[in-house]
Amino acid sequence: MNLPLSQLGPALVWLNIIGIAVFAASGALAAARRQQNLVTFAFFAAITSTGGGTVRDLLLGAPVFWMHDSGAIAVSLAMAVLVWVTPSWLWRGKALDWFDAIGLAAYAVYGAAKARSLGIPALPAVVMGVVTACMGGIIRDVLAGEPSILLRPEIYVTAAALAAALYVGLGSLGVPMPLAAGIAATAGFVLRALAITRGLALPLYRG
Amino acid sequence: MNLPLSQLGPALVWLNIIGIAVFAASGALAAARRQQNLVTFAFFAAITSTGGGTVRDLLLGAPVFWMHDSGAIAVSLAMAVLVWVTPSWLWRGKALDWFDAIGLAAYAVYGAAKARSLGIPALPAVVMGVVTACMGGIIRDVLAGEPSILLRPEIYVTAAALAAALYVGLGSLGVPMPLAAGIAATAGFVLRALAITRGLALPLYRG
Amino acid sequence: MNLPLSQLGPALVWLNIIGIAVFAASGALAAARRQQNLVTFAFFAAITSTGGGTVRDLLLGAPVFWMHDSGAIAVSLAMAVLVWVTPSWLWRGKALDWFDAIGLAAYAVYGAAKARSLGIPALPAVVMGVVTACMGGIIRDVLAGEPSILLRPEIYVTAAALAAALYVGLGSLGVPMPLAAGIAATAGFVLRALAITRGLALPLYRG
Repeated sequence: MNLPLSQLGPALVWLNIIGIAVFAASGALAAARRQQNLVTFAFFAAITSTGGGTVRDLLLGAPVFWMHDSGAIAVSLAMAVLVWVTPSWLWRGKALDWFDAIGLAAYAVYGAAKARSLGIPALPAVVMGVVTACMGGIIRDVLAGEPSILLRPEIYVTAAALAAALYVGLGSLGVPMPLAAGIAATAGFVLRALAITRGLALPLYRG
Repeated sequence: MNLPLSQLGPALVWLNIIGIAVFAASGALAAARRQQNLVTFAFFAAITSTGGGTVRDLLLGAPVFWMHDSGAIAVSLAMAVLVWVTPSWLWRGKALDWFDAIGLAAYAVYGAAKARSLGIPALPAVVMGVVTACMGGIIRDVLAGEPSILLRPEIYVTAAALAAALYVGLGSLGVPMPLAAGIAATAGFVLRALAITRGLALPLYRG
Repeated sequence: MNLPLSQLGPALVWLNIIGIAVFAASGALAAARRQQNLVTFAFFAAITSTGGGTVRDLLLGAPVFWMHDSGAIAVSLAMAVLVWVTPSWLWRGKALDWFDAIGLAAYAVYGAAKARSLGIPALPAVVMGVVTACMGGIIRDVLAGEPSILLRPEIYVTAAALAAALYVGLGSLGVPMPLAAGIAATAGFVLRALAITRGLALPLYRG
């Protein structure tokens, strides 16, 4: 099953841009928490927003998406400046969590869809969705010396895995792509929303 | 000297699968030590078992080995579930160290052999063996926030370097490939075994 | 604008070798500070000296530069041995900082120039300069468990960004390549020199 990304239409293009902006903001905020300078803001913004898609493209053997198009870097730099110049209370609380949840769900579907469109089998395609959605945040946390999102108790990676798996599964069942993408992204977003609002978590290992 | 991997025969295919299973278990156990959920078990299992070979394939410019074949991911997920459902005393003690030593030796030879088969010169090919054997564990430790295997006093990277260098050296001397692979993997395993049983270590820098 | 690297002449070839040697030394010194063995010295030397260029080449989709040429690894191993056998007082103080500043400026220009020669647009090309200059040190710090150079207060990434941006900017204005490379590398070096000698820093975020 070889699915051209173009079938996904302009919705995913916009979700991609939203994802870049939101993840760039979360990178810049990691720099802000450590009282860094503007260049470090820009570095963290760029690496967080492009990290997941970069690792995905390298694994897929596809051209790295921001290398021939300046848009992603430009949006990241703009977000770094925006976080720098706006008052910090704007970025406190859960507003960013909600944007991040949108980015997480969109990127998971987008990454799985890109993998499928290149002929990748179902299981690695789901992994590509998870990588796209989570790897930017993982790199951000490692570079900032913070505990990884991987190790936080509430659901995060799981929401990305659900969205990616649903997209791939529905596609295999013949559900039209835009519908499969919509259902999958919504499900991932709702699951992450339950983690944000109610602390929903999977059972932990008690060995 | 361009060596087709197929000359290495089914032994290395099996050693590869054993390597994936063993390194996946060590990744899942890192998640278990931190009382994580099953999805995190799976994430650590997959990244530890495929990390070294993934970096190797990216550096070689070869297709990433698990991208067109679901086997490696499937084995990793199975090992994550196995570690989750079995009693933890099973995984204590040195049993895992011994499996890990097998994986280390096999991966070092396999990585060097794959590099040589693609026409890579001797010195970078040895590095490819070390990368294949050690990078999964390094990524696991960085993500888990644990001190890297790189910095542990007893011999680990050195055993991988010995196996890879012996394989490349014997091959350059005209030793038939299966024999060279057998000698090299055995030597790396024995060196690592001495580190496990007797704490064998190289002299440390005293500056 | 497609600039062949060969236009940059033998000066950059030499600066590349100096960069490898200096960054290899800084990697070996990170191992020395942690009282490691010679194999760990070699590992840190190689990953620090080749890390930035490796990430750059992967992002560019170009063959990884040290894979078909043993020179970079050989120089890194030689530097690891040199740091191991020479008295440690030789490597204290600011001598290494100065070499590192040369490597930083040269690598930033070299990375941007390589990107431009492959037809990469201006903004990602500047990022490639920063990646080439800084990523080896970032990987070194993450693996050694030290606070990243990213988070140090004095100017470092900024100097690389200045050199890369100046090179790309002057090239776009039609300045001949060797002259643009010379001006850009000098400016980056001087900025970093002011950070070393006077602690020059950008303003920090006060949120």
